[in-house]
Amino acid sequence: MDKYEQVIELAKRRGFLWNSFELYGGTAGFYDYGPLGSTLKRRIEQIWRELFVIQEGFMEIETPTVGIENVFVASGHVGGFSDPLCECKACGEAFRADHLIDKLVPVADALSNEELDRIISENQVKCPECEGDLGDTYEFNLMFKTQIGPGSGRQGYMRPETAQGMFVDFLRLARFYREKLPFGATQIGKSYRNEISPRQGVIRLREFTQAEAEIFIDPENKSHPNIGRFADTVLNLYSDAAQEKGEIEKMTIAEALEKGIIAHEFLAYQIGLTNLFLQRVGVAPEMLRFRQHKKDEMAHYAMDCWDAEVSTSRFGWVEVVGIADRTDYDLRAHASVSKTELSIYREYSEPKMVTQFVVKPNMGKLGPLFKGKAKMVAEALKELSREELEKGEIKVKIDSEEVTVPEDAVQFAEETVKVSGENIVPHVVEPSFGIDRIFYTVLEHAFDEEAVPAKEDEEEESRIVMRFRNETAPVQVAVLPLLTRKELIEPARNIESKIREQGLLVSYDDSGTIGRRYRRNDEIGTPYSITIDYDTLEDNTVTIRERDSMKQVRTSVDGIEEVLYELMYKNRDFESAGVAL
Amino acid sequence: MDKYEQVIELAKRRGFLWNSFELYGGTAGFYDYGPLGSTLKRRIEQIWRELFVIQEGFMEIETPTVGIENVFVASGHVGGFSDPLCECKACGEAFRADHLIDKLVPVADALSNEELDRIISENQVKCPECEGDLGDTYEFNLMFKTQIGPGSGRQGYMRPETAQGMFVDFLRLARFYREKLPFGATQIGKSYRNEISPRQGVIRLREFTQAEAEIFIDPENKSHPNIGRFADTVLNLYSDAAQEKGEIEKMTIAEALEKGIIAHEFLAYQIGLTNLFLQRVGVAPEMLRFRQHKKDEMAHYAMDCWDAEVSTSRFGWVEVVGIADRTDYDLRAHASVSKTELSIYREYSEPKMVTQFVVKPNMGKLGPLFKGKAKMVAEALKELSREELEKGEIKVKIDSEEVTVPEDAVQFAEETVKVSGENIVPHVVEPSFGIDRIFYTVLEHAFDEEAVPAKEDEEEESRIVMRFRNETAPVQVAVLPLLTRKELIEPARNIESKIREQGLLVSYDDSGTIGRRYRRNDEIGTPYSITIDYDTLEDNTVTIRERDSMKQVRTSVDGIEEVLYELMYKNRDFESAGVAL
Repeated sequence: MDKYEQVIELAKRRGFLWNSFELYGGTAGFYDYGPLGSTLKRRIEQIWRELFVIQEGFMEIETPTVGIENVFVASGHVGGFSDPLCECKACGEAFRADHLIDKLVPVADALSNEELDRIISENQVKCPECEGDLGDTYEFNLMFKTQIGPGSGRQGYMRPETAQGMFVDFLRLARFYREKLPFGATQIGKSYRNEISPRQGVIRLREFTQAEAEIFIDPENKSHPNIGRFADTVLNLYSDAAQEKGEIEKMTIAEALEKGIIAHEFLAYQIGLTNLFLQRVGVAPEMLRFRQHKKDEMAHYAMDCWDAEVSTSRFGWVEVVGIADRTDYDLRAHASVSKTELSIYREYSEPKMVTQFVVKPNMGKLGPLFKGKAKMVAEALKELSREELEKGEIKVKIDSEEVTVPEDAVQFAEETVKVSGENIVPHVVEPSFGIDRIFYTVLEHAFDEEAVPAKEDEEEESRIVMRFRNETAPVQVAVLPLLTRKELIEPARNIESKIREQGLLVSYDDSGTIGRRYRRNDEIGTPYSITIDYDTLEDNTVTIRERDSMKQVRTSVDGIEEVLYELMYKNRDFESAGVAL
Repeated sequence: MDKYEQVIELAKRRGFLWNSFELYGGTAGFYDYGPLGSTLKRRIEQIWRELFVIQEGFMEIETPTVGIENVFVASGHVGGFSDPLCECKACGEAFRADHLIDKLVPVADALSNEELDRIISENQVKCPECEGDLGDTYEFNLMFKTQIGPGSGRQGYMRPETAQGMFVDFLRLARFYREKLPFGATQIGKSYRNEISPRQGVIRLREFTQAEAEIFIDPENKSHPNIGRFADTVLNLYSDAAQEKGEIEKMTIAEALEKGIIAHEFLAYQIGLTNLFLQRVGVAPEMLRFRQHKKDEMAHYAMDCWDAEVSTSRFGWVEVVGIADRTDYDLRAHASVSKTELSIYREYSEPKMVTQFVVKPNMGKLGPLFKGKAKMVAEALKELSREELEKGEIKVKIDSEEVTVPEDAVQFAEETVKVSGENIVPHVVEPSFGIDRIFYTVLEHAFDEEAVPAKEDEEEESRIVMRFRNETAPVQVAVLPLLTRKELIEPARNIESKIREQGLLVSYDDSGTIGRRYRRNDEIGTPYSITIDYDTLEDNTVTIRERDSMKQVRTSVDGIEEVLYELMYKNRDFESAGVAL
């Protein structure tokens, strides 16, 4: 078993991850979060909320996972969200054409369908399942399609990202934030990608959870008032230039900004915050890097784009977060398809004097001349250029009829006026998190197998321990009566209640030997276990066992919930939790 | 504007609810939760989690929203989850046939399609949109359909309820809980219902959030160890019998159990818990009743079923929770379609002596007689009844060939054996919550418009105030510097930080007059507002304004976060928060 298999085996056995629809043989690209997995996932999401929603103030919204066609026409997903599909003529199995030849050419995913077909044909690539001939490659759109309502209905899609919900709600959000830049909105929710043939377990899912922030900023001011917070943060940076050399560079954020490696402060701040988040949930710092998109892989509209990548045992470096300055691309795209102005009014710091060409029709003269059409004539005059107005004969077209306007019925001049602001289309900085991949990384980076020193007369053993951080562990404290006896169960249940009321995640377990229960709690990463034994009935003390060191101390039942809280969140030294007896 | 319109207008203006895809003209049956709505909704869900997941210990899982066909064949949704659809022959508009005639007959939704067509024809009902002729009624399945993967792919559906995820994972869950009944699992997530023509705003959504618990219990023991907790809880009960009389009865849970109105303790406990939850999130107690399904509306497999219904201004009594004893129906259905035993082994409290009819083929005799087929003959013999074995000539069919077995080649007898347990199929108690409807109810029941006593020289005014409970208010404290001046902003921002660190939801707002900001905070239901003014700079005190009474007290900035916490959660008297100056 490689490490991936070990982690997945434990995850299934202990209730972190299960294959979806296992009862019916399963389907690739779907996973269930079991009781412990679901808890761990929610704790990761909660830390994300604390950083992005509560601290940064980017309020969370919730928009539907089913979307209508126009939204994804504007976003470009109807036109361009596809993979090259190639089917076997014999058995009908479907493959990603670029994956079929990725051992034969260096950048298979950059090739056109014609080039893919040529390489498949030249190399006589056959169906990996049945050796049959392969058909021509064509584009397969990766959105799940559905119909909204009955009959011909309305074309619907399962959203491929949560982001579009924030863009579509832009005007509502702008009003909510009283039109003051910068402002942001976030969403944590399901997104969908109808993969052709997903074969990477929990790394490539057809239904997955994203946490995304869309932050609308002033295009002319991309500084960040709080950049000092991360100035000294050292990152593993893999910039465009560093990739040329093939070497990751350790660098502070301040230095990366100074050297112009990260485009601007606002983006750099998000990178710093992402780094903080990933380490806080349990990604190992030395297994984390930030890779810049190279000029030729970056979307044409993006200004700068960085991926947080984590090192994994089976899949190598895996992208878990993308952080991009998408400029005004999304808002302009939705404005164009919806024919609605998506901008906000920005007041100048002080009013500007602006010279404008102004046309003033004289209604007193136009009225008698054109009667009911006078107003239309006036409007048409306003559209004319200085050149047209300076001609001796001024002509405008009204209802496809040309009329002549006397010179003295219209005045025009260049005027200097005071303008106090303008409508601008904000730029968007988007940090986009793949929660499922982060979840898997947290499992893998927490996974440890270590030798347990042999006691006399015993063989050396090994134990598996999930070294979750206190803040993410799905069970924080296990309460274990030594034996399944009423006189031990009762005080154990009381201790369980006290710890629960303290707001810690606690589990009660009285099944099997104490050794087996310690092992189980090591495997689910419980930081502390409490054992209630017959001494407890004598002196009101219990044993606390620390997961990582396997050390034990005895402590009083009185106030144990606070001791545990301090061990968990206040870095209290473990030995200090023991009492002199 | 009726109350529904007033609530929705406020909800849109203040960022609780927005029409989805408004930028593109919108689509019926979808709503967005704006920043405040999303926060309120998550707080409701969090209270649900506290009660059902943390206190009851029904661990949460997370299964996909896309499901495969077999799951919904077993659940009955492929076959029977439909509404009668009737389309206009002229304009093509789709209608629910029963809704077209619900003014003409008492129970339109109980009619067959043929009966619906007959009534439509007899009453010459025409298309409400264009007066055109209506086509024949047919069943429209309400699941959103999709394809998983490319090509002919695999038929997929968007789940119509979260419940099936728990049933499909039954064996995994049973193992997680070490096969001890009762155990439960919960899920909070999106479900989908492709309504024909939803016209009831947020009450009838095509995409909605459910919180469901599936609790697996011993079919022979439906008592609840903790029923005493709710014994004295008084409910508005609308039992089958009460519905006959048309009168809601006030009754304690103990009484309802005694009289046999609620089927058993386990169900009654869930009703008590539901009652607690709904009131805790802000449903008005007098606007809440529990209605029993009448015998003829209850699913054939269900044993007893109660809906929590709330009174609303526009839609009358609306079901927000269903609580049912579904017996072993779901597990047996999945067992049958998946051909997998879904049961758990239950040990008897003490072993039982059981008399069984046992057939013992004598292989020593069968071997020489039937050679390679001896084993098949033996198996076939075991299937025979005593009657067949007692006939002089014992015959069995092997590969469609009848063979005769000599009497002395098989023995049979009734034997009494010790059995220490058995496989049983648990029964399921299911409380199922419609979060969006509860959300709307919380808005409507919190909505209040009251006259504000006129000050001298002013006209009497009215104010709108959302009387959210402290625990659910999306903003708990507003921090308002009297003027937008640096010397006031700075201490205001410091107070904001202190309150945030205390774990309260705080908003900072320095836009507009103080009166306008109070009004805004009344409308979003902020329980307390803090005003920082020039006295603050002198004596380090601020004003706290209470939303409901509009009373104000001055208090010290030192420790204000704890004062607020106590006001919020410890029922501290408001006047006591003031200090003598």
